[in-house]
Amino acid sequence: MLKAVQILCCSSGLTRLTKTRNSSTVKLSTFSSPPSRKTLCFNPTRMSSSSLPGPDPVPKSPTFVSGDVRKIKFCQWCGGPTKHEIPDGEEKLRPICTRCGKIAYQNPKMVVGCLVEHEGKVLLCKRNIQPSHGLWTLPAGYLEVGESAAEGAMRETWEEAGAIVEVVSPFAQLDIPLIGQTYVIFLAKLKNLDFAPGPESLECRLFALDEIPFDSLAFSSIYVTLNLYLEDLRKGKVKFHYGTINKRPGSSPSDIRAFSLDYHLQP
Amino acid sequence: MLKAVQILCCSSGLTRLTKTRNSSTVKLSTFSSPPSRKTLCFNPTRMSSSSLPGPDPVPKSPTFVSGDVRKIKFCQWCGGPTKHEIPDGEEKLRPICTRCGKIAYQNPKMVVGCLVEHEGKVLLCKRNIQPSHGLWTLPAGYLEVGESAAEGAMRETWEEAGAIVEVVSPFAQLDIPLIGQTYVIFLAKLKNLDFAPGPESLECRLFALDEIPFDSLAFSSIYVTLNLYLEDLRKGKVKFHYGTINKRPGSSPSDIRAFSLDYHLQP
Repeated sequence: MLKAVQILCCSSGLTRLTKTRNSSTVKLSTFSSPPSRKTLCFNPTRMSSSSLPGPDPVPKSPTFVSGDVRKIKFCQWCGGPTKHEIPDGEEKLRPICTRCGKIAYQNPKMVVGCLVEHEGKVLLCKRNIQPSHGLWTLPAGYLEVGESAAEGAMRETWEEAGAIVEVVSPFAQLDIPLIGQTYVIFLAKLKNLDFAPGPESLECRLFALDEIPFDSLAFSSIYVTLNLYLEDLRKGKVKFHYGTINKRPGSSPSDIRAFSLDYHLQP
Repeated sequence: MLKAVQILCCSSGLTRLTKTRNSSTVKLSTFSSPPSRKTLCFNPTRMSSSSLPGPDPVPKSPTFVSGDVRKIKFCQWCGGPTKHEIPDGEEKLRPICTRCGKIAYQNPKMVVGCLVEHEGKVLLCKRNIQPSHGLWTLPAGYLEVGESAAEGAMRETWEEAGAIVEVVSPFAQLDIPLIGQTYVIFLAKLKNLDFAPGPESLECRLFALDEIPFDSLAFSSIYVTLNLYLEDLRKGKVKFHYGTINKRPGSSPSDIRAFSLDYHLQP
């Protein structure tokens, strides 16, 4: 049996994106802290009920996660019905086939995309699909098995914006634990100016930095990415960013500003 | 119908890890190139058979990938039998339920881990499980839904090495398209010296940098990570690395040096 742990994240000393009341941009107030101070702490002292008395403090997954697990009612390999139990040596509820015994693990998905720069402008796409139909986004989508993140980001940019791009450098990894997604965004450059909306986009346009439609962005991840980029440009150096987007409990998925960016780390 | 594309990656001008014949370390010969030259190219000019005559040049997935898709014979939500077709508007073979119509998408998985530094040494674990039983690895494992990559990396370090660590910064993202995995490795520091092997480890030990067991490492990803780290230390600055590990076609999975590191990008 593996030791059950609880992760308690330190909030002090960590970078947190906060939003000013009447501003559409994120205030990056603690970005000037030295990188060595931006650490994520881990505290396994609160053990599972097997090692400590009292109520079971094993971390609860967000509601949708356990809901998702319960929805897996059949084994995709043999068709047998599943039961939902914590397997020996593990800590999480899993769908286990009652016929062949296989466990159906669920893992976070990577969303890969490009922040395409061209002569001081960035390329955005107006979504022609739900969710967030009609709102602006960076070209991005799910990574496929068989391709690298950079290849996937370029493929998505081609599919959504008809743009041939060249990936220049990694820019950000933004985890969204609540919905089991990780955004991996690359800086990229246009190979030519022949871009046009694909079927998933209504419109694609290069926006000057002071014209980015922050009030009409599709997702928190895009809001954070563009704000980090602008902040880097203001400081004169574009860097790599790692961070966790934690949605405010109870907030609507469409409220893309109801979040905090926690554990902002840089190399 | 989305436009079908083929990604043709440029090999010229890109960083590639090459191995000298009698050396256990990777030669990072092109790391001194300016970052702006390290780009990944994209060429959608070779279209699918629907837009160009001749044999279908749509990229073939690696054998295991299509094999994996074919193994999904039942719908995990309703239990109906699946068919394996390319859905409308897509390009890849997917398992589609013949009863409820749902598509079972397969996506790459993230493996998260820590490169734990302590007084000029690094923490390695000798594996007590297959694959690579008895070989050395960084503490790492699959990211779970509901946690961030940094939290997952610390959890795995606790489970495999009993070590309480503090994540300091992102260090590497290494994609392995052939097996649908992406390694996300963080630099981390020990909070104290109380570490001990968990159930999945035979032994955990701090290795001086010149004693790292390069001939007994478990995976290509660990081999690359440790080599990039040593190379950074030699240059006096540890940076973030993005790269793709492409296994040599036909090589054994246990031959961890049968690879090239392509598209090595840095911020």
